[in-house]
Amino acid sequence: MNTLTPLKNEPPMVESFIPPQRLLMGAGPSRVHKDVLNIMSQTTIGHLDPEMIKMMDELKEMLRYTFQTKNSLTFPVSGPGSLGMEACVNNIVEPNQKVLIAINGVFGARMAEVARRAGADVITTEDEWGKAVDINKVKDAIDSNPEISTLGFVHAETSTGVMSDAGALCQLAANNNIMTIVDTVTSLAGIPVNVDVWGADAVYSGTQKCLSCPPGLSPVTFSEKAVEKVLNRSSPVQSWLLDLSLVANYWQGDSQSGVRTYHHTAPVNALMGLHEALRRVVAEGLDGVWARHRETSNIIVTGLESMGFKMLVDQSVRLPELLTVLLPTNVEDGPVRSRLLNEFNIEISAGLGPFAGKLWRIGVMGEGARPKNAQKLLEAIDECLKN
Amino acid sequence: MNTLTPLKNEPPMVESFIPPQRLLMGAGPSRVHKDVLNIMSQTTIGHLDPEMIKMMDELKEMLRYTFQTKNSLTFPVSGPGSLGMEACVNNIVEPNQKVLIAINGVFGARMAEVARRAGADVITTEDEWGKAVDINKVKDAIDSNPEISTLGFVHAETSTGVMSDAGALCQLAANNNIMTIVDTVTSLAGIPVNVDVWGADAVYSGTQKCLSCPPGLSPVTFSEKAVEKVLNRSSPVQSWLLDLSLVANYWQGDSQSGVRTYHHTAPVNALMGLHEALRRVVAEGLDGVWARHRETSNIIVTGLESMGFKMLVDQSVRLPELLTVLLPTNVEDGPVRSRLLNEFNIEISAGLGPFAGKLWRIGVMGEGARPKNAQKLLEAIDECLKN
Repeated sequence: MNTLTPLKNEPPMVESFIPPQRLLMGAGPSRVHKDVLNIMSQTTIGHLDPEMIKMMDELKEMLRYTFQTKNSLTFPVSGPGSLGMEACVNNIVEPNQKVLIAINGVFGARMAEVARRAGADVITTEDEWGKAVDINKVKDAIDSNPEISTLGFVHAETSTGVMSDAGALCQLAANNNIMTIVDTVTSLAGIPVNVDVWGADAVYSGTQKCLSCPPGLSPVTFSEKAVEKVLNRSSPVQSWLLDLSLVANYWQGDSQSGVRTYHHTAPVNALMGLHEALRRVVAEGLDGVWARHRETSNIIVTGLESMGFKMLVDQSVRLPELLTVLLPTNVEDGPVRSRLLNEFNIEISAGLGPFAGKLWRIGVMGEGARPKNAQKLLEAIDECLKN
Repeated sequence: MNTLTPLKNEPPMVESFIPPQRLLMGAGPSRVHKDVLNIMSQTTIGHLDPEMIKMMDELKEMLRYTFQTKNSLTFPVSGPGSLGMEACVNNIVEPNQKVLIAINGVFGARMAEVARRAGADVITTEDEWGKAVDINKVKDAIDSNPEISTLGFVHAETSTGVMSDAGALCQLAANNNIMTIVDTVTSLAGIPVNVDVWGADAVYSGTQKCLSCPPGLSPVTFSEKAVEKVLNRSSPVQSWLLDLSLVANYWQGDSQSGVRTYHHTAPVNALMGLHEALRRVVAEGLDGVWARHRETSNIIVTGLESMGFKMLVDQSVRLPELLTVLLPTNVEDGPVRSRLLNEFNIEISAGLGPFAGKLWRIGVMGEGARPKNAQKLLEAIDECLKN
């Protein structure tokens, strides 16, 4: 069986890829610090190497700080933010349970779709894109549907640049004995995310936004109540990879001995990168990180407004790290973004859904959130508008 | 809402992680070439950057060569091999369909579990660990269950080091109008994987074995028949992230215009690494890659046999890239593996399940499959046995 067979397909000859040097000021991925990139090129080690396990323990501890939680089950899922979303929904929600999802943009809608595919009976509240989740609508939905088991919502909507009041929504849910699933993909390490103060139950994020790490991992954290719920499910989690009761054998180890056992082969080099990115957050301190995002964002808002741009989102619920900028009638979306990319090597993002062609999404995330980058971006936009 | 809140948790102070320099000769991850590591530390670019799209197109073409297929839908899933397994099973299988899984080790059993969690009515054949899938058992199961829609099996069982006859199994399935799902995690680029010659329908692999790339991506390929089946499902794929009809918008683009649209944020740097790893396979040529694995493996087998070790698997179905080595009674499993790791910086893997403590799994994969590494390993084992 192991004889060589003639090769049918000719091998394609291609050059090594050399990525262009971009300044990433879009909706993600964000700019990555060279220390984080460098550590990702260190030698790969085994996913059960004792040195790897030590590194994972430090990583979890730093994630707990970043999420502001004491939750034991806090680790990065081995996939993008959307897989973290599925990890939270699929573990917390059981088929036929009634789930309420508050939608005010692309990612709330995605969570509703993920919950439907998990077999949930999904009801939704809808808010205009560009507005925060209206807690009164959520309250009304809860009052008229006493059998709701779970509330899901997005803390920082990447599609609109809006922040919703995660603390108030989690409190409302807890008062009604409802579990919460919170999307913090674009908020973690950009604005305060206080998992324990909120009392959130299942929270997921991404590495490629304010954590300033390449995309590919999704940090998650689960409350004790959430873990208990998962362990007492009446049906298995539909994804084997995401089943917390199994993956915990690798990330936490045996409940008695702590010995880690094989579940899947974790993305070793990506985890080394996240370890370093979290180190940078810890070294600067969350207060400092949040302030830097806010201050850099203010520079961009002031600059853009002086050029005649208007912000979509009211200042009271505007995300500093993701600015949605309405285009004046004299500014063409595609051509200007192309010029920014091709002439200035700066990436910003297009509007999604109803906002396509109508606004830009400017990311002020992680390493991008530095005044010199704000200045570069403003100068480049100014240049594009002049000619 | 965006006011700074007092930090409850003190930040943990840790050092940058410096991985030990290991020679990886276990069941994976395998040793990674420095060119692959280096490119992963290049600047992160946007997942929809025109340069990224060009790189992705090259990557797909090189994957087609590596899989020996002309399948249009060939790309890496954004997660580990187990997620690729779920991508294949969840797209191909619908709830309540009868699915036959041939089990002869850990990964066949995992595929059966994944299919059960996808709602399938799973029947299995079982072969002794260390033996290939018995095609007669599969034939009998098909003959007595005419409603079987899908056959799943593992080409190269990483838990036992056994190769099964993928071509014959796919042919048998096709003759009975049954779709096939094939696990090539440990075979791709180690021994011949001829997707089109086999006529396989859904095939997944991993990057961290014979492709010699860090773990975290799962190359998959789907036949035209498989794509048609996915597009005509009566129920949605249970995972939003893995739904091929959606993720194709990013990896293939609009069927008319080819324009790529956002689905999820792909792991940019990991993909750059895979691009380079595939370039190395293409440059050497599959014939050369396969021969190198076989020859290096032979050196290790000869050396170990001369020290008194016996191979678990009969030579006719033995994987050159994953050797399962029975331990003589005078060799202690844990202590010797620890010495190899701590004194010689060489990682080999323990036995799984019934083989725990009874055998070693030695990987001869990718960059590990070079005579100098075989020599280092043999010398180190010899040293451990002497003292």
